[in-house]
Amino acid sequence: MTPQIPEGYEHLLHEPLFAHLATVTRDGRPVSNPMWFLYEDGLILFTNTTNRPQYHNLEHEPRLALSIIDPEEPYRYLGVGAVVERVEPDPEGTLFERLAERYSVDIQLDDASNRVIIGARPTRFWKQ
Amino acid sequence: MTPQIPEGYEHLLHEPLFAHLATVTRDGRPVSNPMWFLYEDGLILFTNTTNRPQYHNLEHEPRLALSIIDPEEPYRYLGVGAVVERVEPDPEGTLFERLAERYSVDIQLDDASNRVIIGARPTRFWKQ
Repeated sequence: MTPQIPEGYEHLLHEPLFAHLATVTRDGRPVSNPMWFLYEDGLILFTNTTNRPQYHNLEHEPRLALSIIDPEEPYRYLGVGAVVERVEPDPEGTLFERLAERYSVDIQLDDASNRVIIGARPTRFWKQ
Repeated sequence: MTPQIPEGYEHLLHEPLFAHLATVTRDGRPVSNPMWFLYEDGLILFTNTTNRPQYHNLEHEPRLALSIIDPEEPYRYLGVGAVVERVEPDPEGTLFERLAERYSVDIQLDDASNRVIIGARPTRFWKQ
């Protein structure tokens, strides 16, 4: 069962904000990287490539966390704990292109062949 | 030996920016929380309390990660892997007060008695 998004924090999942993604390496240490994301049909979606450290981390430990600061009030933030539910090849880079448009960035994608769409289902939220 | 901060990214450790702190829970999942920090004498310093989840996480797994976005160029960021080297009681909340001043925030500290200063030594950097 998907937990409830804390009231008043829903917009942080729907705006083109950076989420800081925490993953855990095979040897148990955490890593943090800012990420584009999309929240759709109850899943956090992000694009990655199969040769990046985050992808290897999630292969080994599918639990991840995100934190997203409210740009209007920087002492408010939403934390999300989630578990990878789907990994789909995206050799055309379609999610990358959707995200680039959403974040209004003109970046040429040069590694589409390795691209995957990662879908993670929230299991808990925290906030401040 | 402290690794070299990537050239051109040093200022991100010296400005009052939010770092997103990744820690690992006792059962191995990552957590992410935005944090104030100070980089001093080669250590990342931050204030916490002994009853917060991050503190318990770091008691169990002293390795942590930070990511800090460059506010001038949001597609640049610095990642820091670090290990907790010192935990000192701070019952007067002195680091909290220094940080509040540094971040220009007027917050009343109501949990000074539990406050600790956590000092973590960088072991690796990554960037984009």
